[in-house]
Amino acid sequence: MKKTAILLTGCAGFIGSNLSNSFVKKNKIVIGVDSLKLGDLKNLKNLLNINNFKFKKIDLANYNVLDNFLKKTLKNYKIETIWHLAANSDIKDGFKDPDNDFKNTFLSTYNLIKAAKKYKIKNFVFASSSAIYGDLKNKRLSEESGPLLPISTYGAMKLASEAIISAAKESFLNKIYIFRFPNVVGSPSTHGVLHDFIKRLKKKPQNLKVLGNGKQRKVYMHVDDLIKSMIYVFDNSHKKISLFNLGPRDDGVTVKFISKEVVKYFSNNKKISYEKKKKGWVGDVPFFRYSTKKFRKFAPKIKTYSRKAIIKAVKELMSNN
Amino acid sequence: MKKTAILLTGCAGFIGSNLSNSFVKKNKIVIGVDSLKLGDLKNLKNLLNINNFKFKKIDLANYNVLDNFLKKTLKNYKIETIWHLAANSDIKDGFKDPDNDFKNTFLSTYNLIKAAKKYKIKNFVFASSSAIYGDLKNKRLSEESGPLLPISTYGAMKLASEAIISAAKESFLNKIYIFRFPNVVGSPSTHGVLHDFIKRLKKKPQNLKVLGNGKQRKVYMHVDDLIKSMIYVFDNSHKKISLFNLGPRDDGVTVKFISKEVVKYFSNNKKISYEKKKKGWVGDVPFFRYSTKKFRKFAPKIKTYSRKAIIKAVKELMSNN
Repeated sequence: MKKTAILLTGCAGFIGSNLSNSFVKKNKIVIGVDSLKLGDLKNLKNLLNINNFKFKKIDLANYNVLDNFLKKTLKNYKIETIWHLAANSDIKDGFKDPDNDFKNTFLSTYNLIKAAKKYKIKNFVFASSSAIYGDLKNKRLSEESGPLLPISTYGAMKLASEAIISAAKESFLNKIYIFRFPNVVGSPSTHGVLHDFIKRLKKKPQNLKVLGNGKQRKVYMHVDDLIKSMIYVFDNSHKKISLFNLGPRDDGVTVKFISKEVVKYFSNNKKISYEKKKKGWVGDVPFFRYSTKKFRKFAPKIKTYSRKAIIKAVKELMSNN
Repeated sequence: MKKTAILLTGCAGFIGSNLSNSFVKKNKIVIGVDSLKLGDLKNLKNLLNINNFKFKKIDLANYNVLDNFLKKTLKNYKIETIWHLAANSDIKDGFKDPDNDFKNTFLSTYNLIKAAKKYKIKNFVFASSSAIYGDLKNKRLSEESGPLLPISTYGAMKLASEAIISAAKESFLNKIYIFRFPNVVGSPSTHGVLHDFIKRLKKKPQNLKVLGNGKQRKVYMHVDDLIKSMIYVFDNSHKKISLFNLGPRDDGVTVKFISKEVVKYFSNNKKISYEKKKKGWVGDVPFFRYSTKKFRKFAPKIKTYSRKAIIKAVKELMSNN
């Protein structure tokens, strides 16, 4: 008899490695794949010697490689669900070269969908992003908000992925789960505002230079809460399409708040300086009103807050350094 | 001095050939490209000998081919605007093989966007589709409607295209125009419900067998009105993003109405039979409430109706046959 396993892409990344750990703790068998372009085997150090976790380095942008891998794997395992987290998570990078987002964020999804059809894999869980909304100014972004006009190639390729998954649901998938992530913080993350500040402070502790005017306000979720939320929805939603904004119960915290939390760990810091411009960088969304009403209604017991998420994550990152 | 020209993709297709004709009549120079997979040179018969129209057979899914073509063309012409109409317009085809939609509807857009960046082409006009909305049941579909969950790979790849164009606007394009088309009828169209009925009636005039129960209601626009509407928006909208649902002022006509209009031309028809199921085919959207309020407000003088569009188109198609 074949054993049932989960196919988890991007397993060596920040969120993927946490999710892999969660599944293995729940006695699930995880077949984890990662291109190791951004992911790191270090993140899987607790898993690589465990029987219920199988790792394979794969470039999902290459369909033939994926196809061969699945052909072999499915001789021994039955895969019912793909958890697709692999992506180029470096948003700024796409402004220089969109090909990275195209290949690693969209083509990877497209190839997985083709493979799911061929190998009759029934369910597809996708790590989407609030970046698909673009900059809808002061509109509160619910799952029903439009128009969807992303302002980064990262957001564009996440939206393109949602679209092809949605079409596949109509044609052959049984259930799809689309989770739109807010900014996620925690360990072992590798980029984002916290890393940026820590790096700058290590170089020049006296003065922390912040991109933008510090008033950019965003919602943050700790990776532990994110994973709890996704698994809760997967286990409890029985609709053909489960689409949720995941996020905290608040309207976020400012870059200023975050910068102050980080400098607390640098006793020799004397100054934080801000720029005059609203946006930190091209593609940055300075304000962000995010509705998590649908999720809160669905999972009233899962309560998360941006402030707590930042404080916990800064502490973790500083103790790892 | 270089002459200013329009780059028009899909120029040998149904809508592209009509648009090419319109521009040439307005004394614009059109550089028309088409892969001729679905497009047909017959559609350009009035244009191929005209000085202001240059045709080149190109597969836009191949970036290097596009790049070489533009390198040469831009020695003699200045291109400020791309009108991108090329796509795999056969929606049903995508359920068998999604690669056609991927290459010819999305990758073509992606490559054009990359080329627009490289060659500093400022404006991008895109022929999108109401198919990006998927099946939002009885919701009236405005430009702000969501979630966007297309149910065909055609719709998915149109949405993916919108997304990458939107991201490019943030990063380097000056103005973008996204037109979401309803069902468009007229000459020289090659597929769709009218062609389907005519083909069936020619084979078996006594009994017209209709897919679905005939109650599917959709909005239709005649190609002449569609082109008038697009050019009006292009000439008069000065926003960075012009996103419009294009369509008639009504809630559409039923398949039953259309079938009756077509059989009028077949004196030996005795019967029209319908199926019991709501959907004609997988990916069909049986009901469709489409809001064109934004366009009507913007262009109050352009008035079009589904009924008139169908009657005019059936007449044209029957006189061409």
